Amino acid sequence: MRKVSVAASKSYEVHVGENLLAQIGQTVAAACGGERVLIVTDDMVGGLYGKTVENAMIESGYAASVFTFPRGEQSKSMDTYIALLSAMAAAGLTRSDIVAAVGGGVVGDLAGFAAATYMRGIRFAQIPTTLLAMVDSSVGGKTAIDLPSGKNQVGAFYQPDVVVCDISTLATLPEETFTDGCAEIIKHGIILSEELFNLLKRPIKPQLEDIVTMNITIKSDIVMADERDTGIRQILNFGHTIGHGIEAGSNYMMTHGRAVAIGMAISARGAYRMGICGEDCYMEIVDMIRRHGLPIETDIPPDRLIQAAFVDKKRNSAGISLILPEKIGKCAIKSFSMEDLAAFIHLGMQD
Amino acid sequence: MRKVSVAASKSYEVHVGENLLAQIGQTVAAACGGERVLIVTDDMVGGLYGKTVENAMIESGYAASVFTFPRGEQSKSMDTYIALLSAMAAAGLTRSDIVAAVGGGVVGDLAGFAAATYMRGIRFAQIPTTLLAMVDSSVGGKTAIDLPSGKNQVGAFYQPDVVVCDISTLATLPEETFTDGCAEIIKHGIILSEELFNLLKRPIKPQLEDIVTMNITIKSDIVMADERDTGIRQILNFGHTIGHGIEAGSNYMMTHGRAVAIGMAISARGAYRMGICGEDCYMEIVDMIRRHGLPIETDIPPDRLIQAAFVDKKRNSAGISLILPEKIGKCAIKSFSMEDLAAFIHLGMQD
Repeated sequence: MRKVSVAASKSYEVHVGENLLAQIGQTVAAACGGERVLIVTDDMVGGLYGKTVENAMIESGYAASVFTFPRGEQSKSMDTYIALLSAMAAAGLTRSDIVAAVGGGVVGDLAGFAAATYMRGIRFAQIPTTLLAMVDSSVGGKTAIDLPSGKNQVGAFYQPDVVVCDISTLATLPEETFTDGCAEIIKHGIILSEELFNLLKRPIKPQLEDIVTMNITIKSDIVMADERDTGIRQILNFGHTIGHGIEAGSNYMMTHGRAVAIGMAISARGAYRMGICGEDCYMEIVDMIRRHGLPIETDIPPDRLIQAAFVDKKRNSAGISLILPEKIGKCAIKSFSMEDLAAFIHLGMQD
Repeated sequence: MRKVSVAASKSYEVHVGENLLAQIGQTVAAACGGERVLIVTDDMVGGLYGKTVENAMIESGYAASVFTFPRGEQSKSMDTYIALLSAMAAAGLTRSDIVAAVGGGVVGDLAGFAAATYMRGIRFAQIPTTLLAMVDSSVGGKTAIDLPSGKNQVGAFYQPDVVVCDISTLATLPEETFTDGCAEIIKHGIILSEELFNLLKRPIKPQLEDIVTMNITIKSDIVMADERDTGIRQILNFGHTIGHGIEAGSNYMMTHGRAVAIGMAISARGAYRMGICGEDCYMEIVDMIRRHGLPIETDIPPDRLIQAAFVDKKRNSAGISLILPEKIGKCAIKSFSMEDLAAFIHLGMQD
């Protein structure tokens, strides 16, 4: 088992290893204390791991209950948030009790926002069961729900008290969902670590503990430097501004990882054509995305992506920043007016 | 005009003076920047000051719009919060734009929670127009809405970027509402400042600028020492644990200030009977509350108040802390089990 320490506005540990769920009650008790825990999960993950986690919590002396909601992004809504808050009140949670998120990014984002805001903040354990959530959303404190006007439009920065990544849970992950998580791993390699990028030239599954730990270290270093996302943390947005447009343009039928993969490919092609990176760098990026079974193109018209960028949270009055690769392991933050962004998207999408 | 500087997780200034609304656009622009502002107010305050504030914002170059909701605690709800978030999205607010709360505590708490959570936090200007909001809720960063299960059960710690207390607005305040604000002022004197307590032996209105500034200084000193309310900030809770029970027991027909006044009187009587303060201290507290037209007794049965304490946010597994006066200007934090709290409430309420 590996541990990564994160020292943001709250200090906490990320545990990475095999078969960690059976001892999850002890781990949570050591990190959070408290008497009651509400386990938040979706109907798929809850069916697989809900009982294991609940029993482990009860064995460690917790009064435990489970809040389950239908899987999928459409549950990351105001309605589910309100239902979850009611369940927290009904369970009698006080500020020193715990919300434990067991699942992927939707579960973590929703449960985290409820933990951040119920009584202005109670204890929060992240127990990610997808590759994407392990290497991305479970560390860093971004929590959110969606509004009809946009994804993640309401949320809070709220760090967890502990994160437990049981990589054994990835064995039950559908291949498509596993692949989705690879997009963020590739992203971390491109923007920050040639060493990680090179590891990804071999299959990920036999090196999961190493790769997950390395990704969490990269992510937490960035979060510690810029927790509230006003500077360097923006580089984690590589592929995301365009990726969010692709998700919106597909009416959220396309998964986050696939949309980010296409966003990275479009950004890399645009960067190459603007002379920001060389052709070899662009080709390496595209090859790596393809190697892990992820797409590099979309049928969504450029204008739809541009339109979506107008409701991006990262936009300010002057325009928006794009993260562009300079070489593998190094990227730049470039400011674009909304007109220049439109031109860039066309450039990156043209054959 | 006076200024108080607050250095919490965010640093900001509190302006106190006469006729500040006419220049509010310049003040907000200097503190917040941004291009768009959404003015949040209720139907009463909006009718009095909405146009003045909107025009001042427009004169300073802002694209301004106004979100108005029905006055009163029942508007501090999930429904109004959702409607406000939609209005923010419709106004096209970005993270560098502004929500400006113009009104009393309900307006500030609701607008502040929306500002804290929309896009994980945008700029926020507090423009309190009641005495209570000026000396209490507008400084310190507590934002919240109510749930059916309890008042302020959902919220965030989120400091404003600027606070503007235009004491001229207090001239239009109904006498009953002005009186309500006196309760928190008396509280600050009892727990922390004999000097302030002595000033309150004369009428408040002729010394408003001094007294508001002194209260904001007291409040901000406490907030700077313990922003997230895990230690010393608890002393601001004097009169509130019992006061919240009185508000709940009256089905929120009794105002916050009156409920806190009764809570302080019951606490002081209980403290005297427990030997924590002398009879002179208890009598001075009761006299001061009466002098400002506030009540010291309630018909609500003790058991109803005890029941309400069980859903208090401040409660933890071990029980609850009460703030009790030792002498004027000095108080103690005492831990009570829920059984001891019940006994204390009976003691403080008996003739």
